[in-house]
Amino acid sequence: MENNKIEKKLSKMAKRVKSSIIRELLKYSTQPDMISFGGGVPDPETFPRHELAKISSEIIEKEYKVALQYSTTEGDPILREEYLKLLKRRYGIDGLSLDNILLTSGSQQALDLIGRIFLDEDSICAVSSPVYLGAASAFSIRTQRFINVPLEDDGMDVDFLEKQLKDLDKKGLMNKFKFTYVVSNFHNPAGVTISLEKRKKLLELAWKYDFYIVEDDPYGSLRYEGEHIPNIFKLGDIEHVILLNTFSKILCPGLRIGAVIGDKSIVRKLVMAKQSADLCSPALTQRLVGRYLQRYDIFERLSKTLELYRSKLTTMMNAFEEYLSEIKGTKWTKPQGGLFSWVKLPENVDTMDMLELAKEKKILYIPGEVFHIDGKGKNYMRVSFCLPTQEQIVEGTKRLVQVIQEYQAKSG
Amino acid sequence: MENNKIEKKLSKMAKRVKSSIIRELLKYSTQPDMISFGGGVPDPETFPRHELAKISSEIIEKEYKVALQYSTTEGDPILREEYLKLLKRRYGIDGLSLDNILLTSGSQQALDLIGRIFLDEDSICAVSSPVYLGAASAFSIRTQRFINVPLEDDGMDVDFLEKQLKDLDKKGLMNKFKFTYVVSNFHNPAGVTISLEKRKKLLELAWKYDFYIVEDDPYGSLRYEGEHIPNIFKLGDIEHVILLNTFSKILCPGLRIGAVIGDKSIVRKLVMAKQSADLCSPALTQRLVGRYLQRYDIFERLSKTLELYRSKLTTMMNAFEEYLSEIKGTKWTKPQGGLFSWVKLPENVDTMDMLELAKEKKILYIPGEVFHIDGKGKNYMRVSFCLPTQEQIVEGTKRLVQVIQEYQAKSG
Repeated sequence: MENNKIEKKLSKMAKRVKSSIIRELLKYSTQPDMISFGGGVPDPETFPRHELAKISSEIIEKEYKVALQYSTTEGDPILREEYLKLLKRRYGIDGLSLDNILLTSGSQQALDLIGRIFLDEDSICAVSSPVYLGAASAFSIRTQRFINVPLEDDGMDVDFLEKQLKDLDKKGLMNKFKFTYVVSNFHNPAGVTISLEKRKKLLELAWKYDFYIVEDDPYGSLRYEGEHIPNIFKLGDIEHVILLNTFSKILCPGLRIGAVIGDKSIVRKLVMAKQSADLCSPALTQRLVGRYLQRYDIFERLSKTLELYRSKLTTMMNAFEEYLSEIKGTKWTKPQGGLFSWVKLPENVDTMDMLELAKEKKILYIPGEVFHIDGKGKNYMRVSFCLPTQEQIVEGTKRLVQVIQEYQAKSG
Repeated sequence: MENNKIEKKLSKMAKRVKSSIIRELLKYSTQPDMISFGGGVPDPETFPRHELAKISSEIIEKEYKVALQYSTTEGDPILREEYLKLLKRRYGIDGLSLDNILLTSGSQQALDLIGRIFLDEDSICAVSSPVYLGAASAFSIRTQRFINVPLEDDGMDVDFLEKQLKDLDKKGLMNKFKFTYVVSNFHNPAGVTISLEKRKKLLELAWKYDFYIVEDDPYGSLRYEGEHIPNIFKLGDIEHVILLNTFSKILCPGLRIGAVIGDKSIVRKLVMAKQSADLCSPALTQRLVGRYLQRYDIFERLSKTLELYRSKLTTMMNAFEEYLSEIKGTKWTKPQGGLFSWVKLPENVDTMDMLELAKEKKILYIPGEVFHIDGKGKNYMRVSFCLPTQEQIVEGTKRLVQVIQEYQAKSG
């Protein structure tokens, strides 16, 4: 069919869905000499490959009737059980049963399923501005009605949110409001963590106005300094908080294991949605992680990874202080964990526009506007320190400064 | 939140999605003494476990930078390349490039993504009656407007379809009509194969009325007798046919590898939809199958599996002839391949209602009504011969006859 005919066959959703620039930039990141501050891609040297190789061969040989067969939609019971233990031991989250967990194909699937079961065309939800790209994508194909809550150094501006909720309530629209989505620790892209006070305030609002808090916490275990703040899920109640987690950053992303923890009736709905989305996740990858957790202390092993990332973060912060600070009007977040810093450049810099020049100079970052549903963020960029080497971080920062200076000179 | 409050938060889609009885029945199938004609679950003894164990350990050790890392959304290039070779060698399908393939998390994800990119609330599509459950589920959460085309022994009633299309055209509704979904070989649940004539007729209709044929072919390589009929995709053109395939039945289901083959612009849209659905499939399982295909001739190895299934099918057909034929008004399809036969019972039998009795008697099947969007099929059942042993097939048939007789006696 010709393009205009194809266009007519496509759904509203197909027209709304946009290609992720992060995945597009992946192509460039493999060019020789390219330094990428782009993707939130873990360092493969941190993957426990010898252990995983051994276990994978063992389970395929001995547990083939499970590991190579269809799994249940809910996910491998062994992994779910191990995951419950981990939640208890690590975060003090207790009192859950297998029915409170659904294993997903990474956190992205969890976001998609949450979009599916909650959002209609006229639904409203609240997200931070900037917002995690994957969440924005999963939600915005279903509704365009967002409350974009400004993000501050200690998390979402909860007073702003409260005002908006009051306003919705006044207009009789609270029945359309489904959830508030937050990344509680080391926000992607902004690197900030929600303070204890704001976590409590969010819960108060959820109780008062009866909505869900979707707490996405992929980076909570990647803390390099400071004290762990209890999860909103732990502070609150299972009837108002849905917790999302993933093994992508603490083990490896290539197995695509995420988890949703929530109220049984919600998990049940998510399971049905997953049945229709892909029947079940691969049994092999689930059993592999389940057996790994039984055999090894994942957090003990993570400590080496944390050391590596901590040191890379320090290198980046020092390089920014030394080189990036030369550019007037530049600010960046100093995260206590996670994978990202969020850089504010002078107002006259459009980071999307500057990307071509950056590619030429062999340095990649993610332009800030892609993390905004509301079209803002043009003079911001997300940078990650986890994949480049220490030398590349310093060299990359120098290149970045050059790029900005040249860009500013050109655009006057 | 209380149940009525939760109910109010849920989307239309969440309310539409139903739990699959097939997956629910899985629980019962593991009871001791239970014989299951239920799931289309392959026999795990056919899985090449030694080979997969070895390759999996090798790729995790040596290719960990790929196998444990994020994959591209399109899927592992090595597997896509091997898959193209396989399509050429096996089906004579030629002239495709990597951009024509998207690897999915089983065929179910392909169905879901197709639903996403084509179907709005007011879209229309055509399916067979009975229809594959997974397709019905993926499509019916998005639209309720179906043309249910009766299935005959040589496939869909194309004259019926044509009449309906003419009718739509007359009403000016052809712009709402998106695709016709067919299982070309050894239909699930009906076991029937579309004849060459009907394949050609379907293509004529697609050309005339400009719609897509979504050709789902999970069982095409499981032919036990007769001649292979060329795929609709091969007979037709890439601008009107989208081909779905899977490794679940020819290798193993636990890796969840499906593939969509289509026009580049359609594949591109599906890729974007998949980005938002789960970013990417596991790199490990994709690379595992890719390397397996490089090292082994999957179809040569399949011949032992075919022998096994062929013999089980013969056993079931003989047992049906001997025992089931005792029950008046009973008919069943005699498939030339695949995993299923479709049994028609006397009108007074409601197979869903009879299921409780069947469970008691330790025999499972899938009630026919679940394969119907239009509420028909109450006196049908789907039976599969692939997982039970030869002895269980005979014993199971005897139990089935008992169940039907008792049920008929009870209901008068």
